[in-house]
Parts: sequence; C-alpha cells; structure tokens
Amino acid sequence: MEIVSENTCFGGVQGVYKHASAACQCDMTLAVYLPPQAKLKKVPVLWFLSGLTCTHDNAMTKAGAQAWAAKYGIALVFPDTSPRGEGVADDDAYDLGQGAGFYVDATQKPWAPHFNMWTYATRELPDLVATEFPVIEEKQGITGHSMGGHGALSIAMTLPDRYTSVSAFAPIANPTASDWGRKQLGAYLGADEAAWVPHDASLLMVERGFHNPVLIDQGTADNFYDLLKPQALADAIIERKQAASMRMQSGYDHSYFFIQSFMQDHVKFHAELLK
Amino acid sequence: MEIVSENTCFGGVQGVYKHASAACQCDMTLAVYLPPQAKLKKVPVLWFLSGLTCTHDNAMTKAGAQAWAAKYGIALVFPDTSPRGEGVADDDAYDLGQGAGFYVDATQKPWAPHFNMWTYATRELPDLVATEFPVIEEKQGITGHSMGGHGALSIAMTLPDRYTSVSAFAPIANPTASDWGRKQLGAYLGADEAAWVPHDASLLMVERGFHNPVLIDQGTADNFYDLLKPQALADAIIERKQAASMRMQSGYDHSYFFIQSFMQDHVKFHAELLK
Repeated sequence: MEIVSENTCFGGVQGVYKHASAACQCDMTLAVYLPPQAKLKKVPVLWFLSGLTCTHDNAMTKAGAQAWAAKYGIALVFPDTSPRGEGVADDDAYDLGQGAGFYVDATQKPWAPHFNMWTYATRELPDLVATEFPVIEEKQGITGHSMGGHGALSIAMTLPDRYTSVSAFAPIANPTASDWGRKQLGAYLGADEAAWVPHDASLLMVERGFHNPVLIDQGTADNFYDLLKPQALADAIIERKQAASMRMQSGYDHSYFFIQSFMQDHVKFHAELLK
Repeated sequence: MEIVSENTCFGGVQGVYKHASAACQCDMTLAVYLPPQAKLKKVPVLWFLSGLTCTHDNAMTKAGAQAWAAKYGIALVFPDTSPRGEGVADDDAYDLGQGAGFYVDATQKPWAPHFNMWTYATRELPDLVATEFPVIEEKQGITGHSMGGHGALSIAMTLPDRYTSVSAFAPIANPTASDWGRKQLGAYLGADEAAWVPHDASLLMVERGFHNPVLIDQGTADNFYDLLKPQALADAIIERKQAASMRMQSGYDHSYFFIQSFMQDHVKFHAELLK
C-alpha cells in the first residue's frame, strides 16, 4: 500500500493510501483516519461510504468527522465510490460508471470486469484495513450518505455478523423503485429485477432488519427527496418493528453542511454500540 | 447583494453571496455563516481571512468552524482573498495576483486599480456585512490562516478600535523579511520598503501590540515553516510583553487538517472576548 499523504489531525493521522485492487482490477485510493488512541491500542472502525460523484476525498474533507472520531476513539475509513482509470468503463452521466459504483458487483457489460464495489467494500478492503491499520476486526460500524447510505444499509443488513452498527445520512432508501437505482441496478445487474432485491434497503429492512438500533437522518429540504424515497424506509421500519431513530431534520438539504451538522450524533451512536 | 447559495448548517445558515465591490472594482464573492442565535438577535462576528490560492470557499468548507460558531453564537465571515475576473490583472505564480491579494491596497501597476484588499476587508465589507446581516458592529474579532493570518494580525493591530479580538493559524508573521512578503509587498506597494512596514505583524507587534490577549497556533511540521517566520513574531511578543498564547502544535502541518484541529479553541477564544 502506497502512502499518498498523511496529515496530523486532532492528534491522530488523516492518511490517504493507494493500492492495487484485485476486486476492481485497478488501483484504488482510500482515506483512513486513525484517532490518537490508535497509537496505544487497536480501536473500533467506522466505515463511511460516499455518494454519487464523490471520491475518498469529499467526506474526508467536508464531513467534519475527525473531531468526533478523535473524541470517541474510533478509526474512520473513506473508500472511493467506484473503480477508476483509463481502462475502466464510464458513462457521460454523473450517476453511472466512475463515481457511481452503487456498491454492487456488476454482472453486465461493459461494467463487469471492474465494477465490483460490493466485493471491494465488504471483503477486500476490510481485510486490507485489518492488516494494515490498528483496528479491531470484531468492532466495525458502517454509515454513508445518499448512494453511500444505500451501501451502508444494504451491506450491514446482509452481513450482520460483520457489522455491529449501521446508520445513514439521506440514503437512497428504495432503489428498486427510484430513478436513483433502477437505472444503475439495471445497467450493472441486468434487466432481471430479482437480482436487484438484495440491494434495496427498504426491502431488506422488511425481510431481515438489523440486530441493533439503526439511525437515519433525512433533511426536509433535501433537493433529491423524491429520488431517495425515505417514506419506503420508514414504512419498512414500522412493518419490521425495527429499533430505529429515523429523524426528519427540518430545513436541511443534501449537502455536506447537512452531514457535518449531525456527524457527532452518528459517530457517538456507533462508538457506543462498538464499545 | 445576490444570494449564490444558502444551506442550513448546525441550525443556522451557511450562505454565499456576490456583490459589486467599489474598492476592488469587480464582483466579489463572500461566505457568511449565521448561527441559530442570529434568528432572535444580533450576534458578534468573527472574520476568517484565508491564505494564498484560497477563495471564500476553502475555509467555509474545510475549517470546521460552523459547529463552534453555532455553539458559541457568533457569525462567521469568509471573504475572498483578492479581486477576480477577466479584467483583473493576474500572474502565473500561485503567490501573486488573483488568490494572493495580501490584504494591502496596491499602489503599483498593473495591480493598483483592483487590488485594494485592505480597503475591501477593513471598510467596504464590514459596512456591507453590518447592513445586510444581524451582527453587532461593536463586537468583531478577526482570525486567519497563513496570508490570512498576516492579514488578521496587521488589520487588528492597525484598527484596535474596530477589533476586540485577534488570533491566527500559521500566519505569515514577518513578510518584510520573507519570500512570502517581499515579493508581494514589492509588487503591490513598490520598492520603497517604508511602505511595507505597516503590513508586517512582527514589526506592528513591537510598535503597537494589541489591547487584548492574542492567540497564535503554529504547527511544528509546517511545510512552509521557514517562510512564515514564527520566531520573529515570538521575539516581538516577548519584546512587547504582549499578553499572548503562541502555541507550537507538535506534528501539525499547514493544511486544513491543522486548522480544524484547533478551530474550537479559536472560536471559543474570540467568543469569550466578544461577550
């Protein structure tokens, strides 16, 4: 793993690293924040999956998470949102291809050889992070924003043995019923909608739920409210009788100004479950 | 004044605004954060002056200041660092021209008609902010980073009646003796070094000092340590017997990861003096 940069931040280290990914068949970049506590002992780890158009950089720079990770003593991992590079397929649209991996393993051309973000985020990268950084493998939480909120929820409900805690900021909550979802799941997984079902947080919530309380924040002034379908997730939580806080945050939109406003709540929520 | 964007953030509003500047003879963009307290009453205001290459956007996005401005109930203003636009002079170097106004009023060609950041930051913009936003004109503090730390210190010591409090992150502390300073002061103010003296924080500290304690943070791993000349400012503080905390922060560099790590201390420092 190659060190791209390391900066002291809140007494810990904010690093950016590059590695050759077997899952994505290209070089991948990620950001890892180690709190000061990690100098003395292994710490729990919170994954932050980012949204459409983002790289590892956006949340690392704008989510204001390091202050709270340092306070509560947990590491943060910010993966990229797709494979990248010259040999990797792409699309002119902002919401397909590079920057829009959707946390699935593509089965369709031209995406299949590289777009394996499910395997990357759930297997390759957790193994790498556990090997390279002082994190406790048994104490992992996962969160994310928008497409990354979809990723966090679908991954956590599918792999409950791996993740102790899950939360999301304005997640794409019902992708099988939204233009943010049908387009991408169709492109990456094909026309058979049965293959989409394991990647829909609202359907997973009804079918599987999660073994710990779930925290969701959704802004009422979100520019993409209709695409996110929070009502489907709310209905699913009710139907499942899932322990959850789904908070409608008055006046907040889809931006990082929204995310940073509630980041402390999320990091604290994970830290307490990961104790 | 034109609203470019407004986002809810920590219960307040992070706005970006554009206006025609008389001082700079061009359109100027600035960011203003109003904390939730400003919905009910006027609040004190803290100016954050940014460094070389920055716009209004960098600190607004990456300094993590809104959390603390909301907590302590003060407004933030992030001005741009120079005039901009097609008719405005520029230079290929990153440290001269657009993005590098140095908080002086240029007297030399080709800079003189537009590069009046001293007048802009100390007169035009304070008047505009006091007119357009619910801030208490008698309660103003000023801080900044690098070139903006130079600006904050030189402005506050020159206009002590205006500013109750001043602090700085890794300021250009002795520009008359540094390549970060001699180049720009020479270009904007001409070869006569007597004109540079009123813009050197270390010289001003010896001559004038400040009527309240001053807070300076400087990273020991700062990539630009030699250009910033913190030792000159430390010597000046000692010579003046200025009430001050000049803190050497171990391992921190010149980045926003450094700034955000100590932003709470600075906002709290200003808020307490502005009470």
